Amino acid sequence: MDACGPGTTALDVVKFMTALRPLRYAHANRRQFVAELKEFIRFPSVSSDPRRAADLNRCAQWLARHLQRIGLDRVRVVPTRGNPIVYASWLRAPGRPTLIIYGHYDVLPGEPLREWHTPPFTPTLKNDDLYARGAADDKGQLFSHVKAMESYLKSSRALPVNVKCIFEGEEEIGSPHLTAFIERNKRALRADAAVISDTRMLAPDRPAISYAQRGGLRAELEVKGPPHELHSGNFGGAVHNPLQALCEMIAGLHDAHGRVAIPGFYDDVRRWGEKERAFMAGTGPTDEQILQDAKVERGWGESGFSLYERTTIRPALTLNGMAGGHHGRGAKSIIPARAIAKLSFRLVPDQHPEKVAQLFRDHIARITPPAVRSSVRTFSAIKPALVNRNHPAVRAAAFAYKKGFGSPPVFLRSGGSIPVVTTFQEKLGVPVVLMGFGLPDDNIHAPNEKFHLPNFYNAIATSIWYLALAAKLPGAKRMQGQTEWQSS
Amino acid sequence: MDACGPGTTALDVVKFMTALRPLRYAHANRRQFVAELKEFIRFPSVSSDPRRAADLNRCAQWLARHLQRIGLDRVRVVPTRGNPIVYASWLRAPGRPTLIIYGHYDVLPGEPLREWHTPPFTPTLKNDDLYARGAADDKGQLFSHVKAMESYLKSSRALPVNVKCIFEGEEEIGSPHLTAFIERNKRALRADAAVISDTRMLAPDRPAISYAQRGGLRAELEVKGPPHELHSGNFGGAVHNPLQALCEMIAGLHDAHGRVAIPGFYDDVRRWGEKERAFMAGTGPTDEQILQDAKVERGWGESGFSLYERTTIRPALTLNGMAGGHHGRGAKSIIPARAIAKLSFRLVPDQHPEKVAQLFRDHIARITPPAVRSSVRTFSAIKPALVNRNHPAVRAAAFAYKKGFGSPPVFLRSGGSIPVVTTFQEKLGVPVVLMGFGLPDDNIHAPNEKFHLPNFYNAIATSIWYLALAAKLPGAKRMQGQTEWQSS
Repeated sequence: MDACGPGTTALDVVKFMTALRPLRYAHANRRQFVAELKEFIRFPSVSSDPRRAADLNRCAQWLARHLQRIGLDRVRVVPTRGNPIVYASWLRAPGRPTLIIYGHYDVLPGEPLREWHTPPFTPTLKNDDLYARGAADDKGQLFSHVKAMESYLKSSRALPVNVKCIFEGEEEIGSPHLTAFIERNKRALRADAAVISDTRMLAPDRPAISYAQRGGLRAELEVKGPPHELHSGNFGGAVHNPLQALCEMIAGLHDAHGRVAIPGFYDDVRRWGEKERAFMAGTGPTDEQILQDAKVERGWGESGFSLYERTTIRPALTLNGMAGGHHGRGAKSIIPARAIAKLSFRLVPDQHPEKVAQLFRDHIARITPPAVRSSVRTFSAIKPALVNRNHPAVRAAAFAYKKGFGSPPVFLRSGGSIPVVTTFQEKLGVPVVLMGFGLPDDNIHAPNEKFHLPNFYNAIATSIWYLALAAKLPGAKRMQGQTEWQSS
Repeated sequence: MDACGPGTTALDVVKFMTALRPLRYAHANRRQFVAELKEFIRFPSVSSDPRRAADLNRCAQWLARHLQRIGLDRVRVVPTRGNPIVYASWLRAPGRPTLIIYGHYDVLPGEPLREWHTPPFTPTLKNDDLYARGAADDKGQLFSHVKAMESYLKSSRALPVNVKCIFEGEEEIGSPHLTAFIERNKRALRADAAVISDTRMLAPDRPAISYAQRGGLRAELEVKGPPHELHSGNFGGAVHNPLQALCEMIAGLHDAHGRVAIPGFYDDVRRWGEKERAFMAGTGPTDEQILQDAKVERGWGESGFSLYERTTIRPALTLNGMAGGHHGRGAKSIIPARAIAKLSFRLVPDQHPEKVAQLFRDHIARITPPAVRSSVRTFSAIKPALVNRNHPAVRAAAFAYKKGFGSPPVFLRSGGSIPVVTTFQEKLGVPVVLMGFGLPDDNIHAPNEKFHLPNFYNAIATSIWYLALAAKLPGAKRMQGQTEWQSS
C-alpha cells in the first residue's frame, strides 16, 4: 500500500490528497474489516441449492444493513423471482462521473465437505489466509469496495464520485434474473463505468486486469434405458445399459486430441492474430504456472495452443458431474434405469451460446444408441465478453493497482464467465472494468477456498485510489459504447 | 397343488401317504404362513450396508427362534466375521438320506426408494402379490422350505429325511464368510444333496430347475486427476478430467458390437455344441419374452447368440453404477478431482474369476490416459457352476414340481450367480438342486420386488413332495462328486 512512493507526479499528489484520509481510516480499521468479512462469509448463501433460499435472504438483509450503516443511500433489497438483489447508491457528487460497483453475495456449495480442512462456512484464519467458501469468490472481493466506500464516508463524509452498487445473489447459477432487473431500471442505472471484482491476479505482487471473459452454457444430459433397474445376472449382456451408453456418448464429445468433437463447434471461433498471441504470451501465465496452480503434472487439450490460450481464447466442454446406478456403499448387481451428466461449455468470440446449444442437441441425437433414450436440457447461456483495455476507465484502474499493490497490473484474459459483463456492455452501454483480487491458489470453486488478507487490504486501498481517480475521468460519458475490443 | 391327479402311479400313492398330512396342514395354515413371511420380510437386512448389521442380526435371531418353534433341533446363530449364519438340523431319521437346505436372509438395498409404490420394508399385499424387498429374493423362497418342514413336524411329528439348514446373511455381497464356515464344518455338514431355492420359474404354471449359474466378479475402478476440484472456467480445456477419462475407459470396455473388449476375455469361454444350443432353444425363453420381462423394446449385446444365450452361456460385463463431480441439485462449474465406477462380470465355464481379474487390471492399466491415475479393486469372485440335470436328486425335484405346480419343470440356465453352488459341489461333494420359485416379473433386484402368493403355496407343496421323494433316493451317497455336467 505504497500511497506516495518513488515516481510520484504532481497529479498523484492531487489524487493523494483525496485518498489520504480514507487510506488512513482503512489501515486503522483492518481488524474490524476482517471481523465483518467473517460475518458476511458465515452465511451459507449457496445459490444452486433451492433449500438455501432463506440463507441467501438473510445474507442479503445483512449486506443491506451493512451498506446502510456505512452511509450509503437508498439501500434496498430488491426481490426477484430468485434471490434478491441488494442495491445501494450514493449520488451526492453532481457533475462527477457515476460508477456501478457490481459483486455477488452468493457462493458455490461447500461439497465435497470431507475435503475441507475446516468447515466451509466457518471462516478460519490461518497465517494470512481466511479460509471459507466465498472468501475470495466473491464476498471478499465485493467487500473490498464496500470497505473502500466506508473509508471515504467515515473519514471524509463523501465519495469522490457517484456510486450505484448492484450486489446480486445468483451469479453462480448464471444470473438468471439480473438482466431483467437491469432492463427494468435502465434509466436509473445510467453510469459512466462499471467495476467488477470477481477475477484473479497472478500473484500477491502481480495484480491483473481481465480484458476478456469466456462465455458459457450449461447442459444436462439424461439417458434412460429400462423403466427400472434390472438384475444384471438375469439381463446382463442382453439389455443395453443407459449408464454405459452415457459413458460412450460422453467419450464421443471429444476426439483423441482433446478437441470438442461436436460438428460445427469451432466454426465461429475467432482466430487471433500473431500480435495478440504474442501479447498474451508476454503477459499470461506459462504452462508451468498453470500446471502448478492446478497441482497436476501434465496438461491436456488442443494441441497448437498454450495452456493459457486453451483456457482463454479456445472454447472448452467440461463434464462437471455424472451419476447413475448404485454408487454408494457396497455393491448392487443391477443394470441402471437411467443416468445423468452435467456439463458446461466455455465459449469464446464469436461463438453464440444458442447456436452451440443447438449443435450439442443435434450431436447428442446423432450419437444416442438406438437401445436407449436421451434428453438434453441447456440453460445459463452467457455470451463471451471483451473489454477495451485502452479505455480511460481501465487505464485508471491500472493506476489504482499500482498505488494499491505497488505494481502495475498485467492485462489478462480470464477463462471464466461473469454473466453481467455483456449485460452491462449491451444493456447499459458502459465500459466494464474487471479488477480482480483473487489469487491462483485461492481454491476458487474448490475445497479450502481462501482469501489472502494482504490482498484484501491492498484491494481496499486500490478501490480507494480508483474512486479518487474515477472522479477525474475525462469525458467518461463520451466513451460509452466503445467497449468491444478489436483484434489486432 | 394337484396332489393326486391323473397319471398317478402306485409309487405316487406311497409317497402321497407321506405327503398327505403335511399338505393338508399347509393348506389350512396359508394365512398364518403369509403373516409370518411378512414378519420375516419386515427386517431391512441389507447386507451391502454395514450400518444395517444390527438389522441383519435381529433378522437372524428372529429366523432362529422361528426354526426352533417349528420343531427343528440344534438351532444356532453362528457368528462370522460378517453377518451370522443361521443353522438348524433335524437328524432323527437314521439310515435315510440327508438334505442340506440353503437360503439367504439378507437382501439388496431398497434404493432407489422413490421408484417404489409402497415402502420396500413394509410388506404390502396387492391382489395375489406380496410387495417388499426380499419377498422373492430370497426370503419367500427360503421360507417355502421352512413352512414345508413345519407342515411335516406339526402334522406328523417327523420329517421323511434328515435335514441341515444353512441360512446365510451375505449372499448378496458374494458370501465372503460362508466358505470358511463350510470348510470348518465339513464333517458336520455331510449330506446327500443340497437344495437351493434362489432362482426363477418361467411363469406361474411353468416351473424351472436351473442347471447352470454364471460366475461373477465385482470390480471398482477409481480415476483421480487434480488433488481437488478445479474451477472449470480457469482450467477447462487445459487439465484432464478424471470423470471424462473414466467415461472414455468405460467406453473402451466394449466394442461397437457389444462384445467385451478386454483382450483375452473370451479365450476360456466354452463353446457349446449344437445339441446343447438346440436344447436351450427348446426350453429357454425367447428373445421376445426376455425383452418383455425387461420391459425394453430392443435387445443389445453379442451378435450370433439369442438373448437367452447372451445371459447364460456368454459372459457379460455390466456397469452397475458410477459417480463423480457434482451430480446433485443445481450446477457447479468444476473439473472433478476423482470418479468411481462399480462393475460386475458374469462369467461362464471355463472362465476363472482370478484370471479375468488380472486381464481387467492389465487392460485398465493400458487404457488409462497419461494425465490421470487409475486404481482397480476386484472382489467377490464366484466360479461359474453347472449341475448334472440327470442326477436322481434333480429328477426327484422335477417330480416334486409336477406335484406342487401341476406341470413338469423345464431345465434352464440362469444368468445370475449363487456363490454357494460351487462351494457345496467342491467342498462338500454334494449334488446341488436349484429349485426356483421366483417369477420373471418379480422385480428381483429392482424396485417393487414381489412374491406371487400362489407360487408360495405351490412352493411349499413342492418342498413337501421333495422331502417325501428324497427319502427314497436310491443310493444318494454313491452319486456324490458326479456333479459336473458335461457338454454334449
